[in-house]
Amino acid sequence: MQEGFTPLTKANHLSPLLDLDYLYIKNETVNPTWSFKDRGTYTSLQHALSLGYKSIGTLSSGNMAVSVAAYGARAGIKTLILVSAELPPEKLNPILIYNPILIRVLGDYGQIYYESLKIGQELGIYFLNSDIPFRVEGSKSIAFELCQQLNYKVPDFVIIPTSSGGNARGIIKGFLEFYEQKLISKLPRIVAVQLEGCAPIYQAWIDKQEKISAVKNPQAIDQAIANPFPPSGNELLRKLKKYNGLVTAVSDYEALQGQRMLAKEGIFAQPAAAVSIAAIRKLRKEGIINQKSRCVALVTGAGLKYSGVLEKQKFSFSTGKLKDLKGIISTKFQD
Amino acid sequence: MQEGFTPLTKANHLSPLLDLDYLYIKNETVNPTWSFKDRGTYTSLQHALSLGYKSIGTLSSGNMAVSVAAYGARAGIKTLILVSAELPPEKLNPILIYNPILIRVLGDYGQIYYESLKIGQELGIYFLNSDIPFRVEGSKSIAFELCQQLNYKVPDFVIIPTSSGGNARGIIKGFLEFYEQKLISKLPRIVAVQLEGCAPIYQAWIDKQEKISAVKNPQAIDQAIANPFPPSGNELLRKLKKYNGLVTAVSDYEALQGQRMLAKEGIFAQPAAAVSIAAIRKLRKEGIINQKSRCVALVTGAGLKYSGVLEKQKFSFSTGKLKDLKGIISTKFQD
Repeated sequence: MQEGFTPLTKANHLSPLLDLDYLYIKNETVNPTWSFKDRGTYTSLQHALSLGYKSIGTLSSGNMAVSVAAYGARAGIKTLILVSAELPPEKLNPILIYNPILIRVLGDYGQIYYESLKIGQELGIYFLNSDIPFRVEGSKSIAFELCQQLNYKVPDFVIIPTSSGGNARGIIKGFLEFYEQKLISKLPRIVAVQLEGCAPIYQAWIDKQEKISAVKNPQAIDQAIANPFPPSGNELLRKLKKYNGLVTAVSDYEALQGQRMLAKEGIFAQPAAAVSIAAIRKLRKEGIINQKSRCVALVTGAGLKYSGVLEKQKFSFSTGKLKDLKGIISTKFQD
Repeated sequence: MQEGFTPLTKANHLSPLLDLDYLYIKNETVNPTWSFKDRGTYTSLQHALSLGYKSIGTLSSGNMAVSVAAYGARAGIKTLILVSAELPPEKLNPILIYNPILIRVLGDYGQIYYESLKIGQELGIYFLNSDIPFRVEGSKSIAFELCQQLNYKVPDFVIIPTSSGGNARGIIKGFLEFYEQKLISKLPRIVAVQLEGCAPIYQAWIDKQEKISAVKNPQAIDQAIANPFPPSGNELLRKLKKYNGLVTAVSDYEALQGQRMLAKEGIFAQPAAAVSIAAIRKLRKEGIINQKSRCVALVTGAGLKYSGVLEKQKFSFSTGKLKDLKGIISTKFQD
């Protein structure tokens, strides 16, 4: 469905605002189901089909469910979507439109993840979960495209909103492969960004732990970046340590600010996707990113995925009669 | 922001379902603001900038407002959005995120349209409304891309969801220009599709009128295709008559069916955009489109634009406990 090959947009307004000479935005909101998930869904679905599987499945709280349901429909393959029973029915509709078999599961999300993989093996269902190898392969294409779009001049920092960790793993792997092939002369520093209310990878990072611990009561504004026990967490920690990466976390409020900042570039992102901008501001203040640092921010999913969250933004507008319109506009334009 | 160059997808599932050998879908849901409007916003904004305008505006009930607000933000130009006062505040948020000056106007929508153009001239605001020449120029690119993507073999029918009529006008103009340059050897038959509850162009067409009449009480499921007095209506009627086009209309129910049918191809469209599929089914039954007719359906905007409408679809799903999961899945997969 032509996933990938997404725009890399120069951030004209955010560069001065963040006191940064060089900032590009990799806009994943224009994928076929409007998030980066389509890349890995495509590759893992192709793998499932090549192995002769007659059905696929996934466990997801949103974007991956939509992506797998869409690609499953397109492939004409039986598609099972498991979601947490906590997900409200109205959030199910944008998944159900693709007509999958959808089951809301009562139970611990982390347990459902591992149980789903087991059931999949027993029943012959290929589960396209967040960190299976062929989904990670799909994420590599983000790194490849960035190299091409930047004419093989690798940026200093690539900032990635991070929930399960699978996408960051794939992007690191992609840069490594190009580096090993001598297509690029250095690796970028990868920054994994989480939300403070559900930041198991960040917590392990600052505590210098080798393994993540599950977050007990996740309190994050956007489910899409709130995996309390990310399956790729430990592997990502190892890779970030090995290749000079880092982990940071921002607050819900900063994510909402990031959302408004991105809109200045004409890009409406969901809060989970806007954390990359919020992270740049934080790291710029901390002096980890400096004015000359060449940065690419990944924006992972469209704002329309979760437009309800806009109730938390404070917007202003006017209301008036047609006969008064010219006067109202004149006043507004004098401000 | 890389508007346009959208996928043309072969409709594997819908072809047999509609008893049609050849059907492609032009997927406009992956534009920067997820509708076709971005094409014309780009061209008319460039025109405004080239003339030295310091502010732009539009009157819209949805997709065009979002598109103009986004591109205005990106261009760093003062942006005025007028909407009908009937639009509920929650529908304003996906416009307001781009921080335009937004005014809800109490009054007749048709009158606001013409008044806005007048005020724009007086106050020096370039109004990027639905049928201004440079917006129509932007829509030409859909025709150009279709010719390229189909290797200059023009389809028999191009089916276009039609509200104001500006997009259909642009597409016709694009095909004509390529035809005059002898890049293509024939013109496609253009089918303009409206919703029965607000079908002024269709009504004039079947009544053999040269001019459209305003619809008094529009009752359509999706505002995006419910302009009661389309400014390009008369011009479109003339062009369709001259170049062997036609007009049809489908019901709200058929639009919702079209939405489900499109989802089989992995494309989640808003009802306004799915009318093209509903129209093909109708014209196929009527024998106007036959099995050998080569058809392209334009899908103009993303389903996430109006996911609330999914409440009207009937979906089914299950709920169960983790310990029972394998059993539930086994049962589901036996069906």
